[in-house]
Amino acid sequence: MENIKSYVQQHKDRFINELIELLKIPSVSADTAYSQDVIDTAEAVKASLSKAGCDIVETCDTPGYPIIYGEKIIDPNLPTVLVYGHYDVQPPDPMELWTSPPFEPVIKTTDIHPEGAIFARGACDDKGQMYMHVKALEYMVQSNTLPCNVKFMIEGEEEVGSASLAWFVERNQEKLKNDVILISDTGMISNQQPSITTGLRGLSYVEVEVTGPNRDLHSGLYGGAVANPINILAKMIASLHDEDNHITIPGFYDKVQELSAEERAEMAKAPFSLEKYKNALNIADVYGEKGYVTNERNSIRPTLDVNGIWGGYQGEGAKTVIASKAFAKISMRLVPNQDWHEITELFTKHFTNIAPAGVTVKVTPHHGGQGYVTPIDSIGYKAANMAYTETFGVPAIPVRSGGSIPIVALFEKELKSKTILMGFGLDSDAIHSPNEHFGIFNYLKGIETIPLFYKYFVELSK
Amino acid sequence: MENIKSYVQQHKDRFINELIELLKIPSVSADTAYSQDVIDTAEAVKASLSKAGCDIVETCDTPGYPIIYGEKIIDPNLPTVLVYGHYDVQPPDPMELWTSPPFEPVIKTTDIHPEGAIFARGACDDKGQMYMHVKALEYMVQSNTLPCNVKFMIEGEEEVGSASLAWFVERNQEKLKNDVILISDTGMISNQQPSITTGLRGLSYVEVEVTGPNRDLHSGLYGGAVANPINILAKMIASLHDEDNHITIPGFYDKVQELSAEERAEMAKAPFSLEKYKNALNIADVYGEKGYVTNERNSIRPTLDVNGIWGGYQGEGAKTVIASKAFAKISMRLVPNQDWHEITELFTKHFTNIAPAGVTVKVTPHHGGQGYVTPIDSIGYKAANMAYTETFGVPAIPVRSGGSIPIVALFEKELKSKTILMGFGLDSDAIHSPNEHFGIFNYLKGIETIPLFYKYFVELSK
Repeated sequence: MENIKSYVQQHKDRFINELIELLKIPSVSADTAYSQDVIDTAEAVKASLSKAGCDIVETCDTPGYPIIYGEKIIDPNLPTVLVYGHYDVQPPDPMELWTSPPFEPVIKTTDIHPEGAIFARGACDDKGQMYMHVKALEYMVQSNTLPCNVKFMIEGEEEVGSASLAWFVERNQEKLKNDVILISDTGMISNQQPSITTGLRGLSYVEVEVTGPNRDLHSGLYGGAVANPINILAKMIASLHDEDNHITIPGFYDKVQELSAEERAEMAKAPFSLEKYKNALNIADVYGEKGYVTNERNSIRPTLDVNGIWGGYQGEGAKTVIASKAFAKISMRLVPNQDWHEITELFTKHFTNIAPAGVTVKVTPHHGGQGYVTPIDSIGYKAANMAYTETFGVPAIPVRSGGSIPIVALFEKELKSKTILMGFGLDSDAIHSPNEHFGIFNYLKGIETIPLFYKYFVELSK
Repeated sequence: MENIKSYVQQHKDRFINELIELLKIPSVSADTAYSQDVIDTAEAVKASLSKAGCDIVETCDTPGYPIIYGEKIIDPNLPTVLVYGHYDVQPPDPMELWTSPPFEPVIKTTDIHPEGAIFARGACDDKGQMYMHVKALEYMVQSNTLPCNVKFMIEGEEEVGSASLAWFVERNQEKLKNDVILISDTGMISNQQPSITTGLRGLSYVEVEVTGPNRDLHSGLYGGAVANPINILAKMIASLHDEDNHITIPGFYDKVQELSAEERAEMAKAPFSLEKYKNALNIADVYGEKGYVTNERNSIRPTLDVNGIWGGYQGEGAKTVIASKAFAKISMRLVPNQDWHEITELFTKHFTNIAPAGVTVKVTPHHGGQGYVTPIDSIGYKAANMAYTETFGVPAIPVRSGGSIPIVALFEKELKSKTILMGFGLDSDAIHSPNEHFGIFNYLKGIETIPLFYKYFVELSK
């Protein structure tokens, strides 16, 4: 497929500029201040799908942000690929750590990206990776090489739990009918070593509020005599792990799928340098559950992390106050067989139980999703591996990821089809962090690899 | 002294309006955004002292905010009273809990203040209480009844540790020479039961920063495998108290002055209703150090409270991030004989020691001060008690307060004189909290009582 290579070379400046325009719109779904921008981004995605060659493109209203649906059906008897992606992005905070503004994309070179990388919120997650599919379609339509039917479903609430997507999928099973779902919203090992994500963790995300006295108090007059909600919250959070970093919520591990010694031995073969890992994060040591190594801790084991905490005086200088309330956002990454509804319930019950008498506790579930494991002997996996092998020169390695794309389990349940996670990002791309970026190499390589997936998927389906 | 009563009645509207004007200036010393306002407040205080009758009034430059010094020396052979107060105020946060804007003073009635109270940041702490002394001077000058010399020293950094005051006092011992120091920056039991604060707790205020990975991380990809600074901070904070709520910092209690059984029995006689206390704060139970009751926990025992905590995502919705850093502001209230420098050092050493290998810890001392106990057989105490007895109809009760006015110990050391704490505020005045207020009754009663202190102090000094 030499044509795609030359097509990419010929159009790469335009491909980059189109993505940059998309990245300029701050589609932060978590913050209602950006709601018009989120909607504007949906419309930009819609226009790009029309332009790339979809025959039908629709803005589908939902209880939340719209879903952009597009399709090009060339023959009902041919297989259908459903491409999923999202046009919303994570909040850019903390703003002060960005070296260039998050919504003013610029290209900078890095050690890992000597050909340059686009720095912007959403560059990799997921505008850049989603847009590779739009450009791959453009190529297949322009070169008349689209070998099957294609549907696009691009949502705007992935970063806040995909509530409307679940609503939409449940109501549109016929419309979304497909033979395989293709998603680029994960990473690969390196630019020399492609990989395919075969497992994802589930997620339960909650917010907790601890209330002590009915107003902020002077810490001198009341200090020592009333429960301080911040101290109590710290104590409650601390108690959620034991000295071996096991999670202490009763029943939390009951349904965890334990891997066999063989499976763990297989995992241990993936290239990994603990020294490089620690150096990249500038930490003296790793930290986690006793009895498991780093690559297990972040993939096959469930976790509990505080994602945000706040309470009392956080300004400059000092304020001697006992806050009335303290808050935290807490997420649990789950592994296959753990049900996120059940875990959310176990957490809520336990967290409420451990509160001392001097405070009251409120737990608000934000969202969640089930974990997922995909088999590596499916046609979809094989087609993806063949595509990577052709463009990278080496076969892809299957890896279990610690991240969550909660809707993958939902797709399997509602649409009865398998998802293939063809990620082109790198761990170092700083997704969800300041200075998120996406390599130009990775972006163009993605556009080049995707049409091969279509080709091999159709060939293997025959 | 019936004249002061009628003078107050005659001028009360003006007294209230003058205080309201002073309260309109947002003199928040902790936040540099208000620095011009702090300076404007200093100038307003200066003008008020001139107008009240001081012969000399100076704006004394310091490394920080200026100190306003005023004096009226009528006869060098007569005793000299040094009045101390502060014109700076606590930050108003959380703003959204104020029922009227903190710097737009309004008079509202409450159950406790049927005659009305002025609602504004600083109404009680300490603009209102400080201004009573200015108006008491005005009366004594106008009525030609000032029986001794008076000096005023009003500072602008009390809420951030009085660093410049210490600097100023050390350099102006002769200028500040006095026979007794008079301060209204504390409370009394109720409007029917005056009290004099005879003990204050010391303070050590620090800020801690826990750093994990060198950037914010995706909690799915890294969760469970690296130390999460918020979880670690929570764990470290939780470990600072044991299950009996004793503080675990090695050496923390070594110098604590323990009260005798007799002294504790004496304290227990002070009127106190645990039910009313809990109801006023809307808490199901009190919480504190095992082996001590509420009124001991908040006065004769040292404490450790988190005054603020923050880290990670605190916005609307959810962000699945592992923050690079987490922060807390922590204050320890100390009791007599605990040295705040030593305690700050013990805290810093311990907090650094308990950090696990995956994080680094920085402890920044903010400020501190020593505790203090004043004898009740001094002339100053007796004069204050006689003054209260005359205006309230009942003698004042000596109480140990849990609050800190760190400079009281400094005054004793540098100026060799005792401080009398004539407070007119109430616990319910919400100082340091939203909706701080000061009763009109309390404000006017203070103006009425202070000249009597001068009278009796001079009589007893003869």
